[in-house]
Amino acid sequence: MEGIEERGVKEVDYLAEERAGAQFHVHSMKIFLAGGQHEYEVSTRIANLVANDPVFAKEDRARISRKELYKNSLKKAGHAWKIILEKGLTEEESMRMRAFIDEPNYTDLHWGMFITALKGQATEEQQHKWLRQAYKLAIIGCYAQTELGHGSNVQGLETTATFDPSTDEFVLNSPTLTSTKWWPGGLGKASTHALVYARLITDSQDYGVHAFIAQIRSLDDHIPLPNVTVGDIGVKFGNGGYNSMDNGLLRFDHVRIPRENMLMKLARVTEQGKYERSNKPRQLGYGAMVYIRQGIVAEASVYLSRAVTIAVRYSAVRRQFGGKDDKAEVQVIDYRTQQHRLFPLLATAYAYRIVGFWMKWLYADVTERLNNNDFSNLPEVHACTAGLKSITTSVTADGIEQCRKLCGGHGYLCASGLPELYAAYVPACTYEGDNTILLLQVARFLLKTLTQVASGTKPVGTAAYLGNVQHLTSVNCEVSQGKDWLNPSVLLEAFEARSARMAVACAMHVAEAPDSELAFEELSPELVEAARAHCQLIVVSKFIEQAQKDLPGEGVKQQLEVLCNLYALSLLTTHSSDFLATGYLTGTQVSHAKDQQKALFSCVRPNAVALVDAFDHTDHYLGSALGRYDGDVYTHLYKGAWKDPLNESVVTEGYHEYLRPVLTQQLWGPTSKL
Amino acid sequence: MEGIEERGVKEVDYLAEERAGAQFHVHSMKIFLAGGQHEYEVSTRIANLVANDPVFAKEDRARISRKELYKNSLKKAGHAWKIILEKGLTEEESMRMRAFIDEPNYTDLHWGMFITALKGQATEEQQHKWLRQAYKLAIIGCYAQTELGHGSNVQGLETTATFDPSTDEFVLNSPTLTSTKWWPGGLGKASTHALVYARLITDSQDYGVHAFIAQIRSLDDHIPLPNVTVGDIGVKFGNGGYNSMDNGLLRFDHVRIPRENMLMKLARVTEQGKYERSNKPRQLGYGAMVYIRQGIVAEASVYLSRAVTIAVRYSAVRRQFGGKDDKAEVQVIDYRTQQHRLFPLLATAYAYRIVGFWMKWLYADVTERLNNNDFSNLPEVHACTAGLKSITTSVTADGIEQCRKLCGGHGYLCASGLPELYAAYVPACTYEGDNTILLLQVARFLLKTLTQVASGTKPVGTAAYLGNVQHLTSVNCEVSQGKDWLNPSVLLEAFEARSARMAVACAMHVAEAPDSELAFEELSPELVEAARAHCQLIVVSKFIEQAQKDLPGEGVKQQLEVLCNLYALSLLTTHSSDFLATGYLTGTQVSHAKDQQKALFSCVRPNAVALVDAFDHTDHYLGSALGRYDGDVYTHLYKGAWKDPLNESVVTEGYHEYLRPVLTQQLWGPTSKL
Repeated sequence: MEGIEERGVKEVDYLAEERAGAQFHVHSMKIFLAGGQHEYEVSTRIANLVANDPVFAKEDRARISRKELYKNSLKKAGHAWKIILEKGLTEEESMRMRAFIDEPNYTDLHWGMFITALKGQATEEQQHKWLRQAYKLAIIGCYAQTELGHGSNVQGLETTATFDPSTDEFVLNSPTLTSTKWWPGGLGKASTHALVYARLITDSQDYGVHAFIAQIRSLDDHIPLPNVTVGDIGVKFGNGGYNSMDNGLLRFDHVRIPRENMLMKLARVTEQGKYERSNKPRQLGYGAMVYIRQGIVAEASVYLSRAVTIAVRYSAVRRQFGGKDDKAEVQVIDYRTQQHRLFPLLATAYAYRIVGFWMKWLYADVTERLNNNDFSNLPEVHACTAGLKSITTSVTADGIEQCRKLCGGHGYLCASGLPELYAAYVPACTYEGDNTILLLQVARFLLKTLTQVASGTKPVGTAAYLGNVQHLTSVNCEVSQGKDWLNPSVLLEAFEARSARMAVACAMHVAEAPDSELAFEELSPELVEAARAHCQLIVVSKFIEQAQKDLPGEGVKQQLEVLCNLYALSLLTTHSSDFLATGYLTGTQVSHAKDQQKALFSCVRPNAVALVDAFDHTDHYLGSALGRYDGDVYTHLYKGAWKDPLNESVVTEGYHEYLRPVLTQQLWGPTSKL
Repeated sequence: MEGIEERGVKEVDYLAEERAGAQFHVHSMKIFLAGGQHEYEVSTRIANLVANDPVFAKEDRARISRKELYKNSLKKAGHAWKIILEKGLTEEESMRMRAFIDEPNYTDLHWGMFITALKGQATEEQQHKWLRQAYKLAIIGCYAQTELGHGSNVQGLETTATFDPSTDEFVLNSPTLTSTKWWPGGLGKASTHALVYARLITDSQDYGVHAFIAQIRSLDDHIPLPNVTVGDIGVKFGNGGYNSMDNGLLRFDHVRIPRENMLMKLARVTEQGKYERSNKPRQLGYGAMVYIRQGIVAEASVYLSRAVTIAVRYSAVRRQFGGKDDKAEVQVIDYRTQQHRLFPLLATAYAYRIVGFWMKWLYADVTERLNNNDFSNLPEVHACTAGLKSITTSVTADGIEQCRKLCGGHGYLCASGLPELYAAYVPACTYEGDNTILLLQVARFLLKTLTQVASGTKPVGTAAYLGNVQHLTSVNCEVSQGKDWLNPSVLLEAFEARSARMAVACAMHVAEAPDSELAFEELSPELVEAARAHCQLIVVSKFIEQAQKDLPGEGVKQQLEVLCNLYALSLLTTHSSDFLATGYLTGTQVSHAKDQQKALFSCVRPNAVALVDAFDHTDHYLGSALGRYDGDVYTHLYKGAWKDPLNESVVTEGYHEYLRPVLTQQLWGPTSKL
């Protein structure tokens, strides 16, 4: 640190006054948000373990080259694995650890996709063979599905796996440029094996896309196997961010693998080349899907809460304007424009945490049903989880960027932690299903449900309200003053009425059209909106359910009530045209909602810092000079700046070649390299 | 290129069919968008000069370290200056050249801020002294206003300039950590001089913030002068992007500068330490402000058009789903969801180009008025330019990111050009006035105008419609079918009625309140919306004016009409709650607007590629594998990937230390560094 005296070592807390003003028991809220006492204890312990291990430091991540970044992420992944073995960490603890290390690497795909897919699609015999290796990382696997020319449309994949009965092998081949496998994480430089999705061809017939295990690198020296072309696909958005991951490309030039490397739980090819489907219900795969999506929603809450923590703390430290008569300027968090953009995101982070808890329950419920061969509610579960994945990831990505903007100029510095958070998070909008395509799937489900309702079938679960469609499409809202909006049943009816009306309007359009597929395509922008309305209703309803439950800890329930109302009213005012267009709400009722929303901002204000403290993120995990627990923002921005590579020399590199000739008008002189 | 056969050298145009389908004369549109034949000729010539000079290559920008990036940007800046001198380029040509080099560097601030401020605030004598040096780059200047703790609120700056009559000098000092100058571009490593904004103190009295010229580095060896602490503030958002700029920090420890270094056009301090204001009208400064904001709006159009060009071309190349019976999959651009998000942005890029032309006229008009001491319409001009700066930069930043998302997974690769475009552009939302604060200034103007209207004053220029407020707050829209929405006067009235009603509602709230300042703060979210509505009206009205003019070139006028209607209807449907809440529109009329919008999508579709071709961006300027003119996307993504540093070695660096020990279960062995 140059030019400014050290502050000394005394502990400061620039946010102490904010914390003193909180109206609830923060520790109880922490336990609630962690998901329980046990989860709280595990998270705290592992978060601190990571934060205190210098190998996991990440301050310089935005400054170093891609090569250093990648090499360092290999080191972190290996170091984590060593700790896991050394300390005998549980699966839960290991997962928390990977999360807190906060740096994407090959093990994410190995554990999250490769092993999960093996469990779902390999026979027991295959699992015995491959999982044994995979569990001890004797092989590193990736999930090679998408291709250069093919993403969401899995049926369009071009890679082929042609069975050759003469040798009892499949021949993997990449027939075109666009068939190059492209994007799989961990593939570029780390993986030894790939789960390859390819068109199965036997006896000259194409049976569509199936999964195969292919070894791609030698286990002796890590050199790619013959006729395998593999590499990294290049730099991605942002400094640090997802660039620690080796997303890869992969081409096969007639590479042979044993027939047994086809994952054969759901279908198999015999030695004679005969294709046979198993009698296992294909629906069993849904369990894994629900599990993965539940994880994505839970992660959305974590990421959004990190951004909100940074923005709330910095908004409380930062002052601007209004400091008259020698008084300090006003804290930015006191401005209504700031509250209007920031507090709804705070409420949303809470909402997603709660809907994440509910999805955990849903996963358990689905697992039990599948075990009992009860597939009745799968379409509803599929639509619900697809939609929640879509809206939570989109809102979180935009919300992180919003938080960055709410930090003004300093949010643009990597030292704020927010640019990297956004860059690392935003792929969640694309992977595991493009968010727009997922909403169209939800819309299709809604239309189908309405058809079934018309023919007397009772809708279930999150679609149950559509059984009440007659009422919902005819009733009007009865709000006559601001505080009427605090009534949970009023809120719930509003969101149900909105969603039902949007779905019904779409259904009528499609039903009237001569070609319903064409009408669906033509109507797709409206269908996306209808699906979004349905998903927002799910989140609102789960938040309301939770807010009505009793909870330990002084003031905890009251805070959740405030945030629940704020979440719902913020959605309502943002999307008020949906409610206005069919006459369910009047302009005056929307005004009441806006007034009530502001009253809620005032309730949140004194608790804002404590409400983000309750997410319990360590300074290491936040990685932000603006979001530090102690609020000592400016000291750390200033100190951090001096670590930039440009500050290594007082006179900049390039001065003699490129600056001096300009300043001295000697552009054509001997030292100039221009 | 490995593993895939070369395509040979024949020229391909994967978009030829798209181009053949265009229904207008593209070359004429190019000339229109360039602003005329002369501008077109200059732009084309300079763009190609830059594109063909290997020093200005930028493919590797996202891959290299910050030090290399910075050093290379010094080289580019110097090389450009050499070309400017060598070829004797005009000011216009030099400006185009800096733009096409497309890499922020110190000369942007030197020419754009340092010299501009000198012209506006220095006396003629001072200009003679400093500009002579500055024009030949014998000194490099930056604009040191913002501080670590102070951005938008200039009056809150803490740096002091205390006059010492005993030596006839000012003493510059940074009394606190938060007074550190922070953010000025070019300051970190390049500038020799800084225009420092500091509180002028003389005779123990604080006269507020004034500008001073301070030399900060030696002209002999570039070493910072004694008691000056200067450096770079660190890495910013994104790879490449704005990181080629040395945004800096600066501290003074009682640094003395001659009294004459205060810019004295508007106020001065005498040898005796007496503070005196000049009799020059302070309003003269408005000219520079209008000029800078006009430039920002023009730039918004350029940036948005770059993103839209990439997204439209790639959407025409990319295919997904729907390929039945061996037919190719559907072009992504044919999907309504894609059109719904992409085509309004295309229309917006055109809209901003047109409003940029109008602001050029406005600048000429203001300059003339100022020369005649006519300050009557300055408040209107101030509000209008503030508002247009705010909405165009916000929409452009979000629009670039939207275009990136519309390119699916591949948009996330730096090879798409879009991550860097976003990262480099988004600071425009903060610099030259935070966008939210600017809209609040517009709102203040609207309220004041309504008060004046009430007392009989006729509003002027872009606020003239408020003279019609009685009619606008009582009339209802008369649209009864989709095509009614194509009537320009119908569109104009809708936007006028919406804006007037929102402003009136806010004005009534504030008027009724006991404390109007408190009410203004409380109402600020609504005020921001009212201001945005007013600014959107300005853009719509200027686009309508332009679309009604005759233009040379077959079909050009028709295309502008389509885009104008699409722009207006997209705003209307997106913000329909504003129109619905007061009953100006019914839900059915909004539905008509949506239907009409889709009909316009179908008009745009066959012209989409030609409409982006008309922006005439070179492949160099776009810097995007996805947005290439020839549409040869996949070849260039594939080729580009192999240039990543991770692909330099077949077996990754770090394998022996960090991967092999994991794979071989020798974490504690001799080669492990874990």
